[in-house]
Amino acid sequence: MKSIHIKPLIIFCISVFITLRMGAQKAFSEQDAFFIKTIFDTSLEEGKAYYWLTNLSENIGGRLAGSPQAAAAVEYTRQEMENLGLDTVLLQPCMVPHWVRGEKEQVRIVNSQKMGTIELDALALGNSIGTGAMGITAEVIEVQGLQEVEKLGAEKIKGKIVFYNRPFDNTQLRTFYAYGKAVDQRVYGPAKAAEYGAVATIVRSMTGKLDDVPHTGVTVYEKEDQKVPAVAISTLDANLLSRLLKEETLQVFIRTTCENLPKKESYNVIGEIKGSEFPDEIIVVGGHLDSWDVGGGAHDDGSGCVHSMEVLRLLKMLNYQPKRTIRAVMFMNEENGLAGGLEYARVSNEKGEKHIFGLESDAGGFTPQGFSCDAEKEVFIDLFQKLNEWLPLLEPYNLHLNKGGSGADIGPLKSQLGLLCGLRPDSQRYFDFHHTADDNIEAVHPRELALGAAAMTTLVYLVDKYGLE
Amino acid sequence: MKSIHIKPLIIFCISVFITLRMGAQKAFSEQDAFFIKTIFDTSLEEGKAYYWLTNLSENIGGRLAGSPQAAAAVEYTRQEMENLGLDTVLLQPCMVPHWVRGEKEQVRIVNSQKMGTIELDALALGNSIGTGAMGITAEVIEVQGLQEVEKLGAEKIKGKIVFYNRPFDNTQLRTFYAYGKAVDQRVYGPAKAAEYGAVATIVRSMTGKLDDVPHTGVTVYEKEDQKVPAVAISTLDANLLSRLLKEETLQVFIRTTCENLPKKESYNVIGEIKGSEFPDEIIVVGGHLDSWDVGGGAHDDGSGCVHSMEVLRLLKMLNYQPKRTIRAVMFMNEENGLAGGLEYARVSNEKGEKHIFGLESDAGGFTPQGFSCDAEKEVFIDLFQKLNEWLPLLEPYNLHLNKGGSGADIGPLKSQLGLLCGLRPDSQRYFDFHHTADDNIEAVHPRELALGAAAMTTLVYLVDKYGLE
Repeated sequence: MKSIHIKPLIIFCISVFITLRMGAQKAFSEQDAFFIKTIFDTSLEEGKAYYWLTNLSENIGGRLAGSPQAAAAVEYTRQEMENLGLDTVLLQPCMVPHWVRGEKEQVRIVNSQKMGTIELDALALGNSIGTGAMGITAEVIEVQGLQEVEKLGAEKIKGKIVFYNRPFDNTQLRTFYAYGKAVDQRVYGPAKAAEYGAVATIVRSMTGKLDDVPHTGVTVYEKEDQKVPAVAISTLDANLLSRLLKEETLQVFIRTTCENLPKKESYNVIGEIKGSEFPDEIIVVGGHLDSWDVGGGAHDDGSGCVHSMEVLRLLKMLNYQPKRTIRAVMFMNEENGLAGGLEYARVSNEKGEKHIFGLESDAGGFTPQGFSCDAEKEVFIDLFQKLNEWLPLLEPYNLHLNKGGSGADIGPLKSQLGLLCGLRPDSQRYFDFHHTADDNIEAVHPRELALGAAAMTTLVYLVDKYGLE
Repeated sequence: MKSIHIKPLIIFCISVFITLRMGAQKAFSEQDAFFIKTIFDTSLEEGKAYYWLTNLSENIGGRLAGSPQAAAAVEYTRQEMENLGLDTVLLQPCMVPHWVRGEKEQVRIVNSQKMGTIELDALALGNSIGTGAMGITAEVIEVQGLQEVEKLGAEKIKGKIVFYNRPFDNTQLRTFYAYGKAVDQRVYGPAKAAEYGAVATIVRSMTGKLDDVPHTGVTVYEKEDQKVPAVAISTLDANLLSRLLKEETLQVFIRTTCENLPKKESYNVIGEIKGSEFPDEIIVVGGHLDSWDVGGGAHDDGSGCVHSMEVLRLLKMLNYQPKRTIRAVMFMNEENGLAGGLEYARVSNEKGEKHIFGLESDAGGFTPQGFSCDAEKEVFIDLFQKLNEWLPLLEPYNLHLNKGGSGADIGPLKSQLGLLCGLRPDSQRYFDFHHTADDNIEAVHPRELALGAAAMTTLVYLVDKYGLE
């Protein structure tokens, strides 16, 4: 019997040691809890995020890279960061694609025996080519995904309009997973259909909600000969089209006049407070300043921008002197190119910087539920464990931690071996608005937005104060 | 050195023992995780909660106790529970107050030197008396709470309209706490003002949002001579009135024609699945069927009713055979009397029943964040600990547990020494709608509602399967 117990005893002696050691090096103090409460109070009562977001989404509006609105947003956020009295505010140039939507899209079923001509609610996909002024009419073939196109082959696809109609998996608790499982149809579907001779592509809108609102978003052509016109139609129209296709052969007319213009210079907008003790340890918070041209880009990603500016503003308001360098970055061109995120990382690597921590908000302005955390494998466990020591400070605010992606813009910093996190707001309503004309300030609740800013400020404060070693 | 280590070693040997023992008596199985996933999937994809709620809030509408709509809601939910094929569906009679609002309220400032006559957005408070057809005009005095009325005394209060204007504390993370800190002004303010000779009362609406939407709600007179007319005005109008009062003496005209009619018979609607092994151990889930007369009572508390019916429906759909008796109760008259909740407990106690678990949903149809748990002191720790053993099954659904109140309707069951819980949805938007004309189906998101039903079903399933011993 005795020998059996030795191994557990040894293990538990080690536990004692670790536990006692952790007790001695307690990961935070009472004063932190007090400071965090002050962060939340200030954000809720004297927050500026909603004010900024109203200006970005309503007074400036949709801000696609290369557009006048994107330029206005660059200047507006630069000025607002200047007003915060930061140590540095600068514009970091980057070359961005310049896609324009052109005239209102026309998409209609032209030959339904049952219903005659039927207009469909549609938006051209970002970066897609136009049909030309005369439009395209062709027979529609419905598929559930890219593999089906490959299986059907040129024989069935050639000369037709391919209609991708695989719906969201609404059993996914987090709607982003449903998006992740469906979005290949929009991103790679048109190019794939073109490979087999399709003349255009229709994609079911990327949402689990049944309504008449079309959702735009980027599509990617990797080669010149993959370029076919591509539109998204609303989920209700997708259901209608699918229902009719079960009974009859349908011709659809598509007219889009979108164009890819020459690249333009645009900017990441960067504001920085220099660290007093460890200025070379950089903490970055960010969102992307560009948005789709329809709607106001309020949740996607005006929220992330104002969250990030608010982190700096709250720390300033509370007279917090960072030990480490804290930057807020409004990244340009996340939606249709990621030029800003890639350029930021390139310049940072060139300078030999080390981002010990990156935090992106690009999942909307809803009530925060916590943070998803990412890092290179060899450092992840240590960094994640460190973060988890602060859970007792986060959980009173309904903030929890999980493993997962951070954000597209800060993703390229991963090789610097820091910790990358994404703010994780409640996701249930997000894809009601994402990439639509409805993504306006009315879709954002001021308190929910303020809680997101406070959550981010809290995590930045803790990382700044204690580091991640 | 050696002796120092003995005590920790003993403690850790005990830990080993407890850990191993807990390992042996694992609180749940793999199969539970699978079943819970099925509950969520079914609720999200084949849920009926939103359909029922649309009928309750739109087709029936506001359902104040004693009203024809309340009677319709009783019959509707009775029929729908009959359709579920439960073992028993019954109406439990209770006598309810019958208050009617009468004609549209008139509240206006009549003598502002600066702005002339100003109409204020107002609603009479539930159970309040009317002014009579001629209305009342009197000078207004602003106070921040009941204590201030006592301090000012009859000398300052007599003959005046007392205006309670203490705002929500918007730093409260959970908006219900802000409500709890402000609502004494509405519930007890009018009676208190009357004690000092006030002729009427105006209360700032119970919300942290600044808008022109008045919020009704109950007021309580304990004695006949405390009865003065009482209205709530919107927060924007409260701010306006307060601002003007700083500069001038104001007369306000109030006209309400509300009436307290004789009590009426109404019903709790009860549906039950009899337990196969422990039929005497009762689990109750519930919400309250009555709502305020303005709006559709969608969040308050149509959501709680359809959540509760959905618990039974989901268990039925998934062919789950409960070991214990599970009841869904649509309680009557929570808003202005609690007759249903009190009668249910009275009858239950009379029968010598034991409710081992009660779960109420009366905090809206928003994304669930967990459950707040309550019980008599002598049993709380054991029961709460038992629940916490299931956390690994709950946390993947963002469900967490805390100590706190359960619900007004099930509260009277506390003396039966069971565990009482309240569904805890995200609260940020709740007081935008609470007790207003805006509490309609549009304010409820189908997925968020479905998640609440699934969360409740999950907890009921676990308590039923494993008990709380």
